[in-house]
Amino acid sequence: MRLAIVGTGLIGASAGLAADRAGFASVAGWDEDPGVLEVAAERGAVTPAESLEAALHEAELVFVAVPVASVPAVVHDVLALAPNDATVTDAGSTKASVCQAAGDDPRFVGGHPICGAEARGPARASTDLFEGATWFLTPLPTTEPARYRAAHAFAAALGARPLAIDPGTHDRLVAVTSHLPHALANVLLNQAGSSRIDGHDPLSAAGGSLRDMTRVAGANPRIWVDIFLDNRVALAQALAEHRRRVEQLEKALGDGDAGFLARWIGEASENRREMLDTAYEDAGALHRLRVHVPDRPGVLAGIFQALGAERLNVNDFELEHLSSDRGGTLTILVTGENEAAQAARLLEAQGYSVVAAPVLDE
Amino acid sequence: MRLAIVGTGLIGASAGLAADRAGFASVAGWDEDPGVLEVAAERGAVTPAESLEAALHEAELVFVAVPVASVPAVVHDVLALAPNDATVTDAGSTKASVCQAAGDDPRFVGGHPICGAEARGPARASTDLFEGATWFLTPLPTTEPARYRAAHAFAAALGARPLAIDPGTHDRLVAVTSHLPHALANVLLNQAGSSRIDGHDPLSAAGGSLRDMTRVAGANPRIWVDIFLDNRVALAQALAEHRRRVEQLEKALGDGDAGFLARWIGEASENRREMLDTAYEDAGALHRLRVHVPDRPGVLAGIFQALGAERLNVNDFELEHLSSDRGGTLTILVTGENEAAQAARLLEAQGYSVVAAPVLDE
Repeated sequence: MRLAIVGTGLIGASAGLAADRAGFASVAGWDEDPGVLEVAAERGAVTPAESLEAALHEAELVFVAVPVASVPAVVHDVLALAPNDATVTDAGSTKASVCQAAGDDPRFVGGHPICGAEARGPARASTDLFEGATWFLTPLPTTEPARYRAAHAFAAALGARPLAIDPGTHDRLVAVTSHLPHALANVLLNQAGSSRIDGHDPLSAAGGSLRDMTRVAGANPRIWVDIFLDNRVALAQALAEHRRRVEQLEKALGDGDAGFLARWIGEASENRREMLDTAYEDAGALHRLRVHVPDRPGVLAGIFQALGAERLNVNDFELEHLSSDRGGTLTILVTGENEAAQAARLLEAQGYSVVAAPVLDE
Repeated sequence: MRLAIVGTGLIGASAGLAADRAGFASVAGWDEDPGVLEVAAERGAVTPAESLEAALHEAELVFVAVPVASVPAVVHDVLALAPNDATVTDAGSTKASVCQAAGDDPRFVGGHPICGAEARGPARASTDLFEGATWFLTPLPTTEPARYRAAHAFAAALGARPLAIDPGTHDRLVAVTSHLPHALANVLLNQAGSSRIDGHDPLSAAGGSLRDMTRVAGANPRIWVDIFLDNRVALAQALAEHRRRVEQLEKALGDGDAGFLARWIGEASENRREMLDTAYEDAGALHRLRVHVPDRPGVLAGIFQALGAERLNVNDFELEHLSSDRGGTLTILVTGENEAAQAARLLEAQGYSVVAAPVLDE
């Protein structure tokens, strides 16, 4: 399979590395920024082309990985230049606008790999970027089935899980699962940052929940302004629905309605269980262990070595740093009550004091 | 110092263990649930008393750690029974109502240790629960200075950082830093859980941002209904302000106002830097490394052993689990560009493909 990558930043260059590993016959690359193309070539991600036309010349599959605002125009240009038997796909975070730009061209299949985008540029490309990730594909009734199969095989070859979806549905779905959370993280952090409560700054009193909920805040304005604008109709709908739900909560608080609050938290608990069920084989058996650890090299190695030596598998973990003299809180998730008890004993044997509890029963 | 603990659940029993370690002369305990008191005694956290009166008999310091809705009434009773020279403090998550219940009694100092409360009960008590935690204290003008000093010394002896604050200010501060994030986590998860988007369930398509932002959702209804109700005025104010900010964002999206969005994300970025500056000595030097890891025992031990052997200090880390066959994403934070490069080399030497980037510059 001869691949052409148009846009050789983090996503494009990572795709090039992964395609090379998967045994693609050739990976031509093009970027309108010569510096970006050069770095991608130096990393061995692509063979640089002299022009967009040259990159597309003999391509069987074209992967467009340019910034989201440029995707529709670039896909339009690529379809004009690409061979008749080529399949064209992209990596944009929204899908309705690009599918519209592609018109009813049977060669186009929209795509959207869900992978962390905190980093930018080909220097940070990684062969494993798509490993285990969901990769949305948005074939249309006019799309040739063979093109869809080619895009599907491409995503799978890069280590991702392809999932077909209608472009408009995709945009409304990511509005709720990604764009709304991102937007609320910014709203929440800016509210905390602009409040002074009798001289106290909420940001310096931030607890774990505020930190967890604003981890994605303030990220990559160049990327996110375009994503928010491109998906503004679906996002505005999700925000309006969010406001309606907040108003409902305000009313319950005003009424002192304990029943509403209990049902509302219970509903969230059920939803959380459902969400975790997609990631864990047995979410109900998950146990959380929490220990305070000093801020010192080697501490974590000791802990994971002890757990690893007993073949205890850690599902999830997190270290929340407090400060260099206050150390941090290490949270470990393991499956099974016996496994949790065994892990607690191992940690206690190392001198740690452990708080252990089921994740979902509480 | 002779300590009496009223309410020997997770917080009370953990305080007993920590006080014992700190060398307190005696730790008497009382709980209206005999089973809870028995477990706390079996754990060696308290010497069980026959009655509340007996527990308070010779106490120099009384720590009330009952559920938040009971705190005002129990503190009122304790003040009626406690010796004249005793200091009385508590652990409730809101402070205005208990300070009102204590009236102008010079022996009372309100308190609120900020520590993870996902677990419950004395069986899960931990000596280290308060280690490095912020512990709010709310002395009033009528409080005797010696009582404030005693409560301060108690919090410090348990490993926490005491911080004096006005009770009303405390409640408005935690409304923004803790109760608002908790409430929004529930709102967000229930919105995602009740939406069906052309047959797709947003919960099973949840990305990292939705999972991060709903980690505290659905937790402990018995505790949180009371916290929300007790602080309902301050929380409703914070929610109304939140709604106003969401509406502003909807307007910017409707207007296609890229300038607003860029300023708004930039503001969030500055706020995030300020928040991280309180936890890290040099937040600007933080680098994030991201690798895909298989779901297999021993993998993490190998990684942390390699980092520990080179004396590389990990500030923060997190493993986000995808599923047992898709593995997970390991995120590591280290301070310093050279340290990040060294860590990346170590991970690459173990066969991992690393994406590394500064945390705040992007």
